[in-house]
Amino acid sequence: MKSAAPASYTLGELAERIEARLVGDPDLRVSGLATLTDAAPGDLAFLANRAYLKYLADTRASAVLVHPAHGETCPCPRLELDNPYLGYAKLSRLFDPLTNRDPQGVHPSAVVSPDAVIGARVEIGAHCVIEAGVEIADDCVIGAGSFIGADTTLGQGSRLHANVTLYHGVSVGQRAILHSGCVIGGDGFGFAHDGAHWEKIAQLGGVCLGDDVEVGSCSSIDRGALGDTLIGNGVKIDSQVQIAHNVQIGDHSALAGCVGIAGSTKVGRHCLLGGGVGLSGHLTLADGVQVTGMSLVTNSILEPGVYSSGTGSMSNSQWRKNAVRFKQLDEIAKRLTRLERGRRDA
Amino acid sequence: MKSAAPASYTLGELAERIEARLVGDPDLRVSGLATLTDAAPGDLAFLANRAYLKYLADTRASAVLVHPAHGETCPCPRLELDNPYLGYAKLSRLFDPLTNRDPQGVHPSAVVSPDAVIGARVEIGAHCVIEAGVEIADDCVIGAGSFIGADTTLGQGSRLHANVTLYHGVSVGQRAILHSGCVIGGDGFGFAHDGAHWEKIAQLGGVCLGDDVEVGSCSSIDRGALGDTLIGNGVKIDSQVQIAHNVQIGDHSALAGCVGIAGSTKVGRHCLLGGGVGLSGHLTLADGVQVTGMSLVTNSILEPGVYSSGTGSMSNSQWRKNAVRFKQLDEIAKRLTRLERGRRDA
Amino acid sequence: MKSAAPASYTLGELAERIEARLVGDPDLRVSGLATLTDAAPGDLAFLANRAYLKYLADTRASAVLVHPAHGETCPCPRLELDNPYLGYAKLSRLFDPLTNRDPQGVHPSAVVSPDAVIGARVEIGAHCVIEAGVEIADDCVIGAGSFIGADTTLGQGSRLHANVTLYHGVSVGQRAILHSGCVIGGDGFGFAHDGAHWEKIAQLGGVCLGDDVEVGSCSSIDRGALGDTLIGNGVKIDSQVQIAHNVQIGDHSALAGCVGIAGSTKVGRHCLLGGGVGLSGHLTLADGVQVTGMSLVTNSILEPGVYSSGTGSMSNSQWRKNAVRFKQLDEIAKRLTRLERGRRDA
Repeated sequence: MKSAAPASYTLGELAERIEARLVGDPDLRVSGLATLTDAAPGDLAFLANRAYLKYLADTRASAVLVHPAHGETCPCPRLELDNPYLGYAKLSRLFDPLTNRDPQGVHPSAVVSPDAVIGARVEIGAHCVIEAGVEIADDCVIGAGSFIGADTTLGQGSRLHANVTLYHGVSVGQRAILHSGCVIGGDGFGFAHDGAHWEKIAQLGGVCLGDDVEVGSCSSIDRGALGDTLIGNGVKIDSQVQIAHNVQIGDHSALAGCVGIAGSTKVGRHCLLGGGVGLSGHLTLADGVQVTGMSLVTNSILEPGVYSSGTGSMSNSQWRKNAVRFKQLDEIAKRLTRLERGRRDA
Repeated sequence: MKSAAPASYTLGELAERIEARLVGDPDLRVSGLATLTDAAPGDLAFLANRAYLKYLADTRASAVLVHPAHGETCPCPRLELDNPYLGYAKLSRLFDPLTNRDPQGVHPSAVVSPDAVIGARVEIGAHCVIEAGVEIADDCVIGAGSFIGADTTLGQGSRLHANVTLYHGVSVGQRAILHSGCVIGGDGFGFAHDGAHWEKIAQLGGVCLGDDVEVGSCSSIDRGALGDTLIGNGVKIDSQVQIAHNVQIGDHSALAGCVGIAGSTKVGRHCLLGGGVGLSGHLTLADGVQVTGMSLVTNSILEPGVYSSGTGSMSNSQWRKNAVRFKQLDEIAKRLTRLERGRRDA
Repeated sequence: MKSAAPASYTLGELAERIEARLVGDPDLRVSGLATLTDAAPGDLAFLANRAYLKYLADTRASAVLVHPAHGETCPCPRLELDNPYLGYAKLSRLFDPLTNRDPQGVHPSAVVSPDAVIGARVEIGAHCVIEAGVEIADDCVIGAGSFIGADTTLGQGSRLHANVTLYHGVSVGQRAILHSGCVIGGDGFGFAHDGAHWEKIAQLGGVCLGDDVEVGSCSSIDRGALGDTLIGNGVKIDSQVQIAHNVQIGDHSALAGCVGIAGSTKVGRHCLLGGGVGLSGHLTLADGVQVTGMSLVTNSILEPGVYSSGTGSMSNSQWRKNAVRFKQLDEIAKRLTRLERGRRDA
């Protein structure tokens, strides 16, 4: 970023941070991260995928994160470790301009209730609105234009980017990262039908996010009807995701973009939901369940494993012929059975 | 909510409000709603689903909403009515902290055009922007950070939560509820191709919402190209929904999360669109059409009933084998026909 | 719009602007655009689809855009041109109230960094926040409540509607149109697993939008992990779209509502993605690829053409029977093969 001096670190500092074995000058400085092919002098690169091994010998990076097996091929200083990708992840935040900013205090244009409790080194951006009873722990950053409703609490070190909305009665754990446009605590979709029209059911529960939760841009997590909607520790939620009222997501599960989960469904720990996946309501998914992209799950899944729905894609002309036959599938199966019986009787 | 005294009501008041038969002390007070299993003294619970009957005898609630058939099983004071779920819905808003607030007036940081017409007891939150020609009827609440564009009108008793965006030329009926992050009146997706590039078609229509419409978090309703996009009375729209230009939604229809409706499609009255449903453009759906979750509808549906698409989900290994066969379906059907003909000729 | 005098133009001006042949009084004025059936005196209508030819003779419009072949049928003055739809598109912006406003300058409530560089005739709305290092070129309009992060740049004539969020390090070309609720530059969904939990990968790249890009309401375009997410010239993106980190979209491609594209996928030029389409990550789509609504593409497509997935919709009762058979498809195919072999051997 032009508006801030770039962070730079010595190879010695970096190696120590990720417990890598350094082969090279510990005082050599790097000030950026890059891919093997894009790296320039001053950059640190990494080799995490054998498919890119061919680029290692010609890299212009000042240093590379590699598995010891590839150390000899490396033309420059290197940090050897068993999992270079994880090492890259751990070092990446050091180069994030937002990480390295000093907290800027409370902007004068922010409207903060006198009944809100604001911790130490908290930054509240311009035009934020913080309502009564809110508790913001130490080291939080609230991005410009964000709204935090009454009695909502944020745990230490949490960050809201600009234009985030937390309704009242939301509990956020420590080190949360909430991206712009996300909305936590809007009403769940609750209505009772009286024969002629829908009667709204006020959503009296809240939302509870554990520690280390990340929520992507424009995602929404609805408040519970009575109890809370619960998001476990370390859960990672991508952009454009919808989580309905009274859903529970187990620790360390990851939800890719555009996932939608209907009300009261419980997702286990360490689950992976691919982009666009839909889960019907009132289901249970066991720990370790993976659902592939754009699949619809309408029954509980009680065994870990990978699950899918859909037809696969093809040319439209081929697809039309096959889709026509899908409508006839039951009939096709019956005709097949009749043929088999006819054959047996022959 | 800690920041406000909880609302409490006598059983007599509540019974009268929903025309239930009270068995118990009319002066007994309750101050919360809860499920049968979570209820504590001071709570009102309800039994609406036979599956939960087993929890009734041990509930710690101070009172329960029940169907008369279960009255005798109830260990505590009860309100008897034919539809306990509807009774719960009608009482729920009494316990919603947002319902019970006094209007807070116009926040000094709100930017309100002198040409806007603001009714009685209207609350406009911090950092709102209200443009010229806007008309806001009595008893509306505009949440912090919301934007209302020129000439847009809001009917009596409507509520915008924080960070809602209404473009210019939008008409909202009475008692609307618009959740955070929703956008009403953005441009429809209109372009003409000139052989090399897309020429934008300015969207000159507006959006018109009837009375008692609710729009969920992060949903979007686009303005019409020429005429208006029309949402009927009592329509309930969940989160992450997309409604394209010149769509019409009939009264009392309900759209679950992540629904997408393409341009100029007309949805009848009392329709139910499940989560993630997609409707192509220029279709007509009759009254009383239900579409199950994540189905894609590409042809008009002229008869009420339930409609679906999709394959169902299964283990990924099983799915791969079947998806491969989907590509061969037309060929399978033809081979079957040849076999049948061969058999007939045998 | 009531709050502004309607724009009006002579037929002579309009004909010249789109190089149409005028048959009628060049000084006749029109002040609105309408469909053939809705038009009233003072409106300009158009006939672009043979299906509407039947409405031409009775239209009350003051003038109509028509193909020369239909000129004689036209009951009123007409502008003849080969592509009336394109002519309508080109004239439409003349009637857009937002086009015809004078720039309003910088609102006093906007918080603009002294280190931001603001061009001539730039309008910055109430409660905007513009961070350090931002460069806004001439003739841009920044809608109320928008946030522009550090070092982000906007090309000439770009417009942000209200409540738009641009993170730091985003580059926007000329004449961009960004609708409310959209978020450009949020973190891509990048994590490395350490065996027990997810380690966040800071997203150090940016987003780069070409010229004439439009992004719809509530859409999100994530910043790259290392390099940038790239959106080409003339790309049109509808509402509720999700574009993941390091995606590249070629010039003049169009993405309809609710499309989701996973990380590092490259979409060619002049592609059309229908509503709700999903593209898996690390794919390549050639130029001129069209994907029909709600299809999921999981393999690269290297030939232009139309591609689809899905089953088509039907009554739920019919669908249930067919979906059950989908699970048996591999077995059905094998049984068919056995029957054919049995038949051959007979």
